[in-house]
Amino acid sequence: MLEGIEIIKPGDIEEKSFEILAGILGDREFSKEHEPIIKRVIHTTADFEYADLINISDDAVESAFNAIRGGGSLVTDTKMALAGINKKNLAKYGGQVYCFMDDEDVAAEAKARNITRASLCMEKASKNSNIRIYVIGNAPTALIRLYELISEGVVDPALVIGVPVGFVNVIESKEMIKKLKVPYIITEGRKGGSNVAAAIVNAILYMMGRD
Amino acid sequence: MLEGIEIIKPGDIEEKSFEILAGILGDREFSKEHEPIIKRVIHTTADFEYADLINISDDAVESAFNAIRGGGSLVTDTKMALAGINKKNLAKYGGQVYCFMDDEDVAAEAKARNITRASLCMEKASKNSNIRIYVIGNAPTALIRLYELISEGVVDPALVIGVPVGFVNVIESKEMIKKLKVPYIITEGRKGGSNVAAAIVNAILYMMGRD
Repeated sequence: MLEGIEIIKPGDIEEKSFEILAGILGDREFSKEHEPIIKRVIHTTADFEYADLINISDDAVESAFNAIRGGGSLVTDTKMALAGINKKNLAKYGGQVYCFMDDEDVAAEAKARNITRASLCMEKASKNSNIRIYVIGNAPTALIRLYELISEGVVDPALVIGVPVGFVNVIESKEMIKKLKVPYIITEGRKGGSNVAAAIVNAILYMMGRD
Repeated sequence: MLEGIEIIKPGDIEEKSFEILAGILGDREFSKEHEPIIKRVIHTTADFEYADLINISDDAVESAFNAIRGGGSLVTDTKMALAGINKKNLAKYGGQVYCFMDDEDVAAEAKARNITRASLCMEKASKNSNIRIYVIGNAPTALIRLYELISEGVVDPALVIGVPVGFVNVIESKEMIKKLKVPYIITEGRKGGSNVAAAIVNAILYMMGRD
């Protein structure tokens, strides 16, 4: 009845998956620091285009390590990324993940100002100096607001993970972040999403040591 | 400073996004019932391959409508899909979304039996007769266990959303579901994921009427 199914122990499935995807990537080489991030995003999406789309600034991984080791926290614009990030691993260093999307004050003020809740969430995050890593997996409006806050000197993130997905101002918002001196990990083009955002954060955490 | 950025009111962003993606899809035609599902998945991923990958059985959408209108609930194997599904819209009909992945009894029994938590979650769901829609966005092991439970007559879902992603038994698990008489929505091949799963559920809910 289950012919064609390969029997694999639960603990071995992830390793086997990475073996298969490495085989498909073939001879392609990535830097030692970037490879786990690129591979985890492909593991999460089965989309090999990400091998070409993920753009990591030189200092990004090191800066993220330092921020997390220092107990820094993260903010994200999506509850799905919040659900997907390995919060237990992060908590070992003292940090946590914030998502203000459901906060009543955010909803009310966003409506009053006729801006997106996601962009207001960036303002709210900028008031918490322990938030060192900004993870935008959904809304380009959040990434644009973050660009402004960085440009104005209001915040100076250790890392911007800028992987909004979609069709309105998505490409433009990522291009803006690349113009800043801030460490960044982005996905070129329209692709990205909350699953990609969570995969990038988890790849960084796993590079620092797994449970 | 924000040159290149199109200023769009928050409430208009989604509509504009769907306009752009419809333009990219061009003359391509889908059935009236399938189009909102396919377009929402592309909206969520910016991956136009899904126009070819999404496979919806004839009775799937109607069966889902009936189950939801009847107050039926959903189960999912991923906390990210749980986070992404519009639970407020679902609650209007009386249903809810279950995810047993973090349940302590599931973790203990899965370890004892050396099976994945996701497959055990399907067994747990099969004991709740109000769960009518099974949403698998991550683990092929869950989809395989569900196949067995359906084959054995233990459960008779109104809809199986089978969109696990990855490299180990992913394609095979989807092929198995297609052999059953159960209404299904799957993604052919390796692609899928929790974001795709949530997008499919939300598309169905929005077809039934939005807040």
